Amino acid sequence: MTLEAIRYRAGSLQILNQLLLPHESVYDEIRTVQDGYDAIKAMKVRGAPAIAIVGCLSLAVELRAGAGGDDPVSFIRESLSYLTSARPTAVNMGRAARELMEFAVNESMEKPPDQLRESVIGWIEEMLERDLNDNKKIGNFGAQHILSGVPVESVSILTHCNTGSLATAGYGTALGVVRSLHALGRLKRLYCTETRPYNQGARLTAYEAVAEGMPATLITDSMAALTMRQQGVTAVVVGADRVVANGDTANKVGTYQLAIAAKHHGIPFYVAAPSTSCDLSMETGRDIVIEERPPEELTSINGNPIAAPGIEVWNPAFDVTPHQLITGGIITELGVFLPSELQAALTGRLTAL
Amino acid sequence: MTLEAIRYRAGSLQILNQLLLPHESVYDEIRTVQDGYDAIKAMKVRGAPAIAIVGCLSLAVELRAGAGGDDPVSFIRESLSYLTSARPTAVNMGRAARELMEFAVNESMEKPPDQLRESVIGWIEEMLERDLNDNKKIGNFGAQHILSGVPVESVSILTHCNTGSLATAGYGTALGVVRSLHALGRLKRLYCTETRPYNQGARLTAYEAVAEGMPATLITDSMAALTMRQQGVTAVVVGADRVVANGDTANKVGTYQLAIAAKHHGIPFYVAAPSTSCDLSMETGRDIVIEERPPEELTSINGNPIAAPGIEVWNPAFDVTPHQLITGGIITELGVFLPSELQAALTGRLTAL
Repeated sequence: MTLEAIRYRAGSLQILNQLLLPHESVYDEIRTVQDGYDAIKAMKVRGAPAIAIVGCLSLAVELRAGAGGDDPVSFIRESLSYLTSARPTAVNMGRAARELMEFAVNESMEKPPDQLRESVIGWIEEMLERDLNDNKKIGNFGAQHILSGVPVESVSILTHCNTGSLATAGYGTALGVVRSLHALGRLKRLYCTETRPYNQGARLTAYEAVAEGMPATLITDSMAALTMRQQGVTAVVVGADRVVANGDTANKVGTYQLAIAAKHHGIPFYVAAPSTSCDLSMETGRDIVIEERPPEELTSINGNPIAAPGIEVWNPAFDVTPHQLITGGIITELGVFLPSELQAALTGRLTAL
Repeated sequence: MTLEAIRYRAGSLQILNQLLLPHESVYDEIRTVQDGYDAIKAMKVRGAPAIAIVGCLSLAVELRAGAGGDDPVSFIRESLSYLTSARPTAVNMGRAARELMEFAVNESMEKPPDQLRESVIGWIEEMLERDLNDNKKIGNFGAQHILSGVPVESVSILTHCNTGSLATAGYGTALGVVRSLHALGRLKRLYCTETRPYNQGARLTAYEAVAEGMPATLITDSMAALTMRQQGVTAVVVGADRVVANGDTANKVGTYQLAIAAKHHGIPFYVAAPSTSCDLSMETGRDIVIEERPPEELTSINGNPIAAPGIEVWNPAFDVTPHQLITGGIITELGVFLPSELQAALTGRLTAL
């Protein structure tokens, strides 16, 4: 069974409320664009792909109920603008809004309101479907690539942060690779780092692993090298916030350190990301600006102080892993590529491996 | 000013209650062996050297008040046996008890009760003094060695866990090196890792740094490599639970990963430890058994759950850093030695560098 973070069928949407995870698993009903906006704003759903999907699906549900009346285009425009404003830095929602609006305007030239609503709903459902399918392709390409490199029956994977059903339309990217291995009966064990300071590994990845009955072990971020040396890690697989043209990859802080440790132990290091996360307009990772987040993420937990008062804090949200350390490859829905092959592969000059 | 975790003057002992740190700084009066036992048992004091010092000083205070009457040897024997039982795995207390008992028995041959009490008190005060002086020597040798290797005015040090006044008789080992640099006006910045899962860095090292006005920044364990690449780390200095004959070093989990990251960045990696932490009877680190601690240290904090229920946990308390990664040297009270020189240096066949 795959954990369903988003439950959608025509006219009905429920989302797993991530604010209550991992201690309570409660699905909230999303009936309107307002519900969708509120869920995104309150961070009941997080992860840029998931935000875009939930936002658009909330529009689909309301359209199915006849919203917009005789002028659905205006309703769609206002809704998308409102939804985008809930978390303006989550780029996927903005991109989806632009594409969907263009589609809706074109459709409105030739279709009456009810048919336009149907078309737009269809577009949104296809978006959900496509994202899920891309993730499954990433999962399968990654699993096959990892298995092809080793003579053993089953493999152990180490991952970082949360890149699963809870961050995407479903299935996941790096965790999707782990899901595929588990589905094939070839996953010996998943090691998930707790991922300080926000603990996405301990809270979310561990939750997904338990929910699906994967053999999984939680470790602190500082135990990764010892785990590699002593527990037998076949490959490290992580997600990406952004992959640039030369393969340098921005991802959750700690990824760079994992890549160094993997290199030291001769363990292949993979990045799993849809091609939409690849930004070929940027040459190298040196140009990526590292966002710094509030000190409180380190000095308190659930509002309770855990560090000495008065200490200064450095809290970069992510780091950049140089392409030289991405020794396994970059796993996309088009195939698995070496960093040096990425640009050619994404521009159609190289076929999937 | 050096943070005083142990305040002793003839007949009076106070210890900083570490259970209340970092939020409250309260000194508890230790008047008797029973008080000493209780403080050790309840972990108001921790760190093997500190436990031995506080245990013996509690005996000195009670002896000063005339305890033991006409038969001080029996009182000393019972007291040392009781104190050793408070934390039986802390080896230093056991070693101190054996040595002190031998001394007391010898003294009792020729001295009346009151003079014997004086001798034993003197022995204990010397032990406190020696430990402090050894730490200061470690601090100064380490500081000079680090400064001699770089052309810059001031240096930035990255450390792990707590190895300061709160873990020793005072001053500290790895943090003693940082103290010495700070006293010389040559410390640009200390980076301390929070040291999951028990957060000794965030709670104790950060507390010591704030208390002494050191420029210090707290980072998560997973940010160490990024800190090395981006913030300019001159050297990494850590403590040791045990250094074996070939220089392999057991220390708080995460040390191994830091050593790999330091090597990757060409940053010297030092271990600071008194010669009493060196165990030449063990050839290599392969023979060191790694203690595993309860899962709850990862899954909850101050009793509040922070991880997904049902997840398996691996919680090794320490790891072993191979001597090849200890590129700066091993800092002892006798001098700074390369791992390959350690055995000769400790057996008197090599002079301090």
